[in-house]
Amino acid sequence: MVNKIEKVALFGGTHGNEMTGIYLIKKFLKHPHLLERSTLQVFPFLSNPKAIQSRVRYTEIDLNRCFAPEDLGDLDQVLYEQLLAKTIHQKLLNNQINFVVDLHSTTANMGLTLILSDTNDFHLQLCTYLSLIYPELKILYYASTEKNKLLRSNTDLGLSLEIGAIPQGILDANLFIKTEKLIYSLLDYLEEYNQNKIDQKSHNLVFYEVFERIDYPREEEEITAMIHPNLQFKDYQPLNFGDPLFLTFEGENIIYDGSSEVYPVFINEAAYYEKGIAMCLTKKREINVTFH
Amino acid sequence: MVNKIEKVALFGGTHGNEMTGIYLIKKFLKHPHLLERSTLQVFPFLSNPKAIQSRVRYTEIDLNRCFAPEDLGDLDQVLYEQLLAKTIHQKLLNNQINFVVDLHSTTANMGLTLILSDTNDFHLQLCTYLSLIYPELKILYYASTEKNKLLRSNTDLGLSLEIGAIPQGILDANLFIKTEKLIYSLLDYLEEYNQNKIDQKSHNLVFYEVFERIDYPREEEEITAMIHPNLQFKDYQPLNFGDPLFLTFEGENIIYDGSSEVYPVFINEAAYYEKGIAMCLTKKREINVTFH
Repeated sequence: MVNKIEKVALFGGTHGNEMTGIYLIKKFLKHPHLLERSTLQVFPFLSNPKAIQSRVRYTEIDLNRCFAPEDLGDLDQVLYEQLLAKTIHQKLLNNQINFVVDLHSTTANMGLTLILSDTNDFHLQLCTYLSLIYPELKILYYASTEKNKLLRSNTDLGLSLEIGAIPQGILDANLFIKTEKLIYSLLDYLEEYNQNKIDQKSHNLVFYEVFERIDYPREEEEITAMIHPNLQFKDYQPLNFGDPLFLTFEGENIIYDGSSEVYPVFINEAAYYEKGIAMCLTKKREINVTFH
Repeated sequence: MVNKIEKVALFGGTHGNEMTGIYLIKKFLKHPHLLERSTLQVFPFLSNPKAIQSRVRYTEIDLNRCFAPEDLGDLDQVLYEQLLAKTIHQKLLNNQINFVVDLHSTTANMGLTLILSDTNDFHLQLCTYLSLIYPELKILYYASTEKNKLLRSNTDLGLSLEIGAIPQGILDANLFIKTEKLIYSLLDYLEEYNQNKIDQKSHNLVFYEVFERIDYPREEEEITAMIHPNLQFKDYQPLNFGDPLFLTFEGENIIYDGSSEVYPVFINEAAYYEKGIAMCLTKKREINVTFH
């Protein structure tokens, strides 16, 4: 069991065109008292200043895929984001950070989503606490592969926060406010946890577990179809055999031919076209979470 | 009065991250019969291949601001898009193009909008014809400044088509289909016009005329506020004295202090943050259009 969370790092701008996190961090840097809690120190960071300056996701390589231990240890990997990842990792070590929150946004209609790489008790309790305050909050369990370690993988404890749907490069005031409130509640939880004040009964927690990623239909790299209109904006809604997945440019439907009910997320995320991901498929899970 | 429209150029990808136009042009290049009409030739073009490849608006400078005659004639302007503009201009001359359609998309909620640089009879008749088929269609009169000539400014006749709200970098099947249909109706009109088959009575046409552009509140370049939640997605809706325009990051409202009713458009367009435009203000006009 985790003892205390004393040092928290809050990142925005890990992707330089995801403005919600960037402007929240700028706000916190300007008004540090907003993050003050008696039992923990919170450090706000802008992850990728060069990408933020250029209003792009990254300048040379996706920073949020550069944190595998062998990559961090490879001193011959010297693209801008590969260098930056080593520095961020060192910064987390030097500051003895034990909890990381990484703020993201998505063009997919995922509302307010917490993404976990690990379903340990601490994470599940935190998510349960926040779900009770924010019933619309979604919990996504998305284990990162060994090769593509994320910023949140730098510490044992940590998560990403996604908000959407929002285009890259803009702010949406409603989503900004929602994200800000959730951050304060998350810090409140850590504070209460440190003070042994968490006094919850057991609760059921629904979460979604990513098990597969689906690419767009392609011919020689080039996509040949779009997300089907019936599926657009339908993140976290059930998809069954025979439901339309894609619509070709010539107007033909391509259906889902899996046998079991799944729940797609990251549907039509702009940054995932180049990664070969049209959506991620999840299974819906429900577990009982107890507080010790 | 215009005699006949015999050569039409259809552009997509003038901005390389506006996917609707890009994939429509790719479709037309693959299926050229879709653009065939008996009295006119239609040439589909991808404007900025390098920006399209990189999925960015432009590589060095906004192509759609490079078409002023003095820029086209200045052989010392050799940024990629400045060179490209000269080539596109020459291509239009060589092909004796007399009508240009330039396909764009926007993160603002502007629906299906035709943008005119010039309210000549030909343009107004075309817009009236299309408005009768598509009642949701909006007509925007946005005169370009002498210094910032657009692709559509290369010919006396021509217009831009905007579709939104859609994030940069993604396709939305519904908006793709709407744009495609409108293009076919536009070509049908040109065909009927060439055949002297336009047989309309006079009709009233509503259009919106841009008269001012408003920037975000800023401190030393940096924005200090967001589009107000009440205004987000409210393109083409009336705005009056006292209505909220912006919400500062600290939560304060900034109101519209103009005295007359206006209709904002391009509200929260991602590409306009760097241009210093939070929205464009328009006046609503209504005129009677007769067909000769």
